[in-house]
Amino acid sequence: MIKQMKNALATWIWFPGDYEIWLGNQMNNRRTERGSFFPPFWKIDNHYVLVDFHKDFDLAAAEEITIRVEGQYVFKLDGKMVPGQPRIFTMPAGKHRINIKACHTASPPAIFVGGKNVYTDNTWLTTFEDKEWIDESGKVSDVSATAWLPAGSWDFNDPDILPSQFKLKTVPLDAMKAEPQGSGQMVDFGKETFGFIHIHGLHGKGRLNLYYGESREEALATDICETLDSLTVDQPAKGDLLLKDSKAFRFVNVQPEAGVSCDSVSMLYEYSPLEYRGKFRCSDEQINRIWDVGAYTMHLTSREFFIDGIKRDRWVWSGDASQSYLMNYYLFFDSPTVRRTMSSLRGKDPVTSHINTIMDYTFYWFISIYDYYLYTGDQSYIKTFYPRMASLMEYCLGRRNANGMMEGLTGDWIFIDWADGYLDKHGEVSFEQLLLCRSYETMALCAEIYGNPDDVEKYKRLAADLKAKLVGFWSSDKGAFVHNRIDGKLSETVTRYTNMFAIFFGYLTPEQQQSVKQNVLLNDDILKITTPYMRFYELEALCAMGDQSYVLKEMKDYWGGMLDLGATSFWEKYDPGQSGADHYAMYSRPFGKSLCHAWGASPIYLLGKYYLGVRPLTPGYATYEIEPVLGGLAWMEGSVPTSNGDIALYCSPVEIRVKADAGVGVLRFQSKEIPVSPGNEIKAMGNNQYELALRPGKQYTVSYAGQGSGSL
Amino acid sequence: MIKQMKNALATWIWFPGDYEIWLGNQMNNRRTERGSFFPPFWKIDNHYVLVDFHKDFDLAAAEEITIRVEGQYVFKLDGKMVPGQPRIFTMPAGKHRINIKACHTASPPAIFVGGKNVYTDNTWLTTFEDKEWIDESGKVSDVSATAWLPAGSWDFNDPDILPSQFKLKTVPLDAMKAEPQGSGQMVDFGKETFGFIHIHGLHGKGRLNLYYGESREEALATDICETLDSLTVDQPAKGDLLLKDSKAFRFVNVQPEAGVSCDSVSMLYEYSPLEYRGKFRCSDEQINRIWDVGAYTMHLTSREFFIDGIKRDRWVWSGDASQSYLMNYYLFFDSPTVRRTMSSLRGKDPVTSHINTIMDYTFYWFISIYDYYLYTGDQSYIKTFYPRMASLMEYCLGRRNANGMMEGLTGDWIFIDWADGYLDKHGEVSFEQLLLCRSYETMALCAEIYGNPDDVEKYKRLAADLKAKLVGFWSSDKGAFVHNRIDGKLSETVTRYTNMFAIFFGYLTPEQQQSVKQNVLLNDDILKITTPYMRFYELEALCAMGDQSYVLKEMKDYWGGMLDLGATSFWEKYDPGQSGADHYAMYSRPFGKSLCHAWGASPIYLLGKYYLGVRPLTPGYATYEIEPVLGGLAWMEGSVPTSNGDIALYCSPVEIRVKADAGVGVLRFQSKEIPVSPGNEIKAMGNNQYELALRPGKQYTVSYAGQGSGSL
Repeated sequence: MIKQMKNALATWIWFPGDYEIWLGNQMNNRRTERGSFFPPFWKIDNHYVLVDFHKDFDLAAAEEITIRVEGQYVFKLDGKMVPGQPRIFTMPAGKHRINIKACHTASPPAIFVGGKNVYTDNTWLTTFEDKEWIDESGKVSDVSATAWLPAGSWDFNDPDILPSQFKLKTVPLDAMKAEPQGSGQMVDFGKETFGFIHIHGLHGKGRLNLYYGESREEALATDICETLDSLTVDQPAKGDLLLKDSKAFRFVNVQPEAGVSCDSVSMLYEYSPLEYRGKFRCSDEQINRIWDVGAYTMHLTSREFFIDGIKRDRWVWSGDASQSYLMNYYLFFDSPTVRRTMSSLRGKDPVTSHINTIMDYTFYWFISIYDYYLYTGDQSYIKTFYPRMASLMEYCLGRRNANGMMEGLTGDWIFIDWADGYLDKHGEVSFEQLLLCRSYETMALCAEIYGNPDDVEKYKRLAADLKAKLVGFWSSDKGAFVHNRIDGKLSETVTRYTNMFAIFFGYLTPEQQQSVKQNVLLNDDILKITTPYMRFYELEALCAMGDQSYVLKEMKDYWGGMLDLGATSFWEKYDPGQSGADHYAMYSRPFGKSLCHAWGASPIYLLGKYYLGVRPLTPGYATYEIEPVLGGLAWMEGSVPTSNGDIALYCSPVEIRVKADAGVGVLRFQSKEIPVSPGNEIKAMGNNQYELALRPGKQYTVSYAGQGSGSL
Repeated sequence: MIKQMKNALATWIWFPGDYEIWLGNQMNNRRTERGSFFPPFWKIDNHYVLVDFHKDFDLAAAEEITIRVEGQYVFKLDGKMVPGQPRIFTMPAGKHRINIKACHTASPPAIFVGGKNVYTDNTWLTTFEDKEWIDESGKVSDVSATAWLPAGSWDFNDPDILPSQFKLKTVPLDAMKAEPQGSGQMVDFGKETFGFIHIHGLHGKGRLNLYYGESREEALATDICETLDSLTVDQPAKGDLLLKDSKAFRFVNVQPEAGVSCDSVSMLYEYSPLEYRGKFRCSDEQINRIWDVGAYTMHLTSREFFIDGIKRDRWVWSGDASQSYLMNYYLFFDSPTVRRTMSSLRGKDPVTSHINTIMDYTFYWFISIYDYYLYTGDQSYIKTFYPRMASLMEYCLGRRNANGMMEGLTGDWIFIDWADGYLDKHGEVSFEQLLLCRSYETMALCAEIYGNPDDVEKYKRLAADLKAKLVGFWSSDKGAFVHNRIDGKLSETVTRYTNMFAIFFGYLTPEQQQSVKQNVLLNDDILKITTPYMRFYELEALCAMGDQSYVLKEMKDYWGGMLDLGATSFWEKYDPGQSGADHYAMYSRPFGKSLCHAWGASPIYLLGKYYLGVRPLTPGYATYEIEPVLGGLAWMEGSVPTSNGDIALYCSPVEIRVKADAGVGVLRFQSKEIPVSPGNEIKAMGNNQYELALRPGKQYTVSYAGQGSGSL
């Protein structure tokens, strides 16, 4: 008997994207509304039921392998079926091909092979069609090798835990306080949290009602709070009960009916075990607190996938996720969660509607893929999913009007933003065309990586054509892009969306940028943005133009405003003009607003990218720039995660210290005097601009005369 | 409390086609080969996980309804969610809409509502996308009403039995005899059968091996028989064991290893409860036996779906099924099995390969839909599935060459038939173009029913263009169509396939028909057909030309030949020139041949359609013809089922008696003397041809002077 040795790299594998689709369905279907099941309103896809996996091996010696499969399966060695469904097999020495074909309906077919040299990982190839067929002679041959895709995986490395058994981590957490409330108690966990309520000393017969609240007001509003649990209790002796369904809350209003009682309530906090690799500290304590609460908001909404908010819909939304990805690059740098989310959102062919039914959300999906590549340098995702990018784009191309632009057709939701005012969604909305243009550019880049030169040409041409047409939305009168065109007639309305995106897309001349800044961004007559969602982009546009000082004040007003109201996580929407419990209303419902919404966490991104100023220049931070801007802070320090270690820096008006673990970087800064960095050559670029080349692993210290903190 | 009354018409419903896809996967995945799981080699689809069902009601009084759902669900009344997952609900009087949205991964989401007036049936509408969406105001509206499809159903009428629990019927059956064999016994069930082996008096510890055989030789060949079970026994006291997996067999070679014993073996015969509505008896006992064995062969292969053979692959194949459908119209007239099989074969979009990967099998699928409509008159299937017909045809159109013809591309299997000789599959195979042309014609007809005039025009034009091009395959020299064209060069080879199909497709002039008959069908130099599969069409072509006498002799030789060899069901292939156990070999395997293959049962079809001569002229037998042809028989009588009762007749050379339950018919016959039918007017058509108009429900007797039986 050959001793079985499992390689530590062995992991469960599946058809790429299928586990993500399945898990996404599990996640999206956990939404409830006051006890009713509340599934998504868009099509949800399903996994391939029958999948073949194979890999070729050349072994110096025979070895024993462990085989585990989620589903029924057949194991083939060199095309010959091994009887039964073997769980242990001795691989002979020499060149051999293993095929495992697995079938499972309730969850994706998945396989695990553990051996010393023969083990499952992403180098295995998969297909949902055999790509082998039997002709009259019984001969079996691969006829379409191109259709094999590399297997998908996560980090499920235990052969005896099936992928479908996956759960996030949990840890017990006590309430901060509990006070009598009616015939029950009001339990306060001290801050926004998420998990499974644990009831202790439960006793009696009857109903126990739990009313959840992100605010105390909501938990008290038993008739209208968004989520609740109504439990049937029949417990003659005191016992504990751990609820099966997770909820988001800070407050739990525990109301037993007559004949039922309980002693106390705690929870199992459920979380994704992500490391806070990104760090930020500065001279302003309010900004530090904003960063902390932003990071916690991001952590609560970074679960199996990046979701929007944890209380109400708990769904995966492409527009929301596209911001989570960006924040993630400056906080967790967790690429698997990005990939899972993108795969789950894309689903399967045929495409029958926009992602989440929202046109803009389709475009954010494309754009996010390029962001992913830029930050991680990982081409493999694009190589695997390019065909699905292409088919989604074909869907878009098929919905253009005669002018080559996309208008809302039946079933399309033109979202843009929740606005406190009329936002016209009709006709050719300039914002949608702008995103479409950027999506074409993304397709051209990805086609290059995938290796399809025809598509590169096609999408470059489409992008160039559409970019030329975007000029048609520019109004010289208004010095800005107008909002839309209906039946060939340009509207007179200017909104912020197209204008601010055009800035950081680099679609404007410096003169146009300044015009937009004055006529739109800093113009109070233009419809204001009230969601952190679009604040993200508005402030990014200002930062991209160097207005960090202004943005810092905005951050302190807007996010600081939420903190002043006692926020322990950032909200879906915030209007400083409101007061009291009015803050909690949205969607015509008194507690409809999410008080923990991923898009609320954008300072994480802005502080990392535009204050610490760390940005990749080429994919995966192979080259990068650091352009620290204090924006009025006395000092700041922090760390930005990358695929290969971190980039750490400290910056004050007189000193910059920086160290990067990998990559070739450049530090850019302004100095009123000639800067000094002992042992290093600083290049003067003119106009008080300086550059210092950075090599990996080395600590640099620069003495200079930068902008003071007096402007704060 | 309102008393709950369930309407007898209440039935489980699901998204159309989804249950069929799921059940087809269950069926196709039951194939094993000597203990190994042997799934299909083509893509298998999956159901929609999340489906919405709705219907509008206008109730005179409130009523209580029962709700059952396979899956999680939300119940909405007039768009408002009812908390929890109610199993009983009181519907208020007046106009109301019910929506039930259900989610299930392991099997298709399905719902059952039972009430007096409010109950689930095919009038409910379903969608996998909500077709409702929420705009900023929270308003919910249907935006794409066209995408709702009528729900699918079968006859699952018990609220407490979930659709996924469905099983075929079973009945215990004893073996005919058992004889000692080695250390065990050889059990003979007397004829080909199918089901679950039941072992009685099982005792001891060790292995019990069961070797199945459609022939005694196969059951004895323990090393190479196609199917087996190897059971681990640990049974200290005698007990019974019913096997979980079904098998096909006549013989079971029961071989216990040392330490294991059993007393006897019986079985649970598993079958679809179908009624033999078609009947046939005649003066020739061998033909009667052929009909009986054909009917039994059809019954064994008519299961959840029409499958090819019951022993080896047990899969649903489109070409095989297209013949089963036709036989079914003359035997069971079970439309649900036809629809299930067609839906399962079609699967879902996107189309990534031909049905079963076989080009001809895609075309048979199209053609079968028109057959289904002609025999049943049911337009609803076409109305529901036309979009899937269109997308499958789009796949075909995308694979045409520059000449507008389909050649085999990578991954395509050009099957045509198993042949004992070289059958060229390269280039433009004339047979495939012929089937494609017929498929275009089918699309044009179905587009008319679906109500898409553009498609009607498109497919009429495609059919006309291709029909004109088919002439290019006609060789005046050979007086027949040639087999194929490679790189623009016509082959010299003539095969039977294109020629015989062209006859009953009505693509030939009477002169061409006669030319084909002499130069191809009756020409021994042309590659012979050795499968009952193509014998079906060959004999149909001859019958269509009036050669029933010749065909009767062929039937007696070919099917009678199998009976003479002891066949209890008809085979996949039969070569009279072989002897002994050579008959059982196929696919280079000694027992590879199926001895119970649906395509072996074609006499059922030929005898009903071309001897009894009963054929629909318009859909659903609204009008029909009866043209009895004795073909040498002294008399025959029988019955042909229709959607509305039966058409029964007796025919001898001197008398015809006929009675039809419904429809407007015409009896056509030849008589050498003037025929007489008391009280009815017989029309003389000239040339000894006569016609008698038939009204429903009336018995007609005709005295005439027809062809005698002397020619047999």
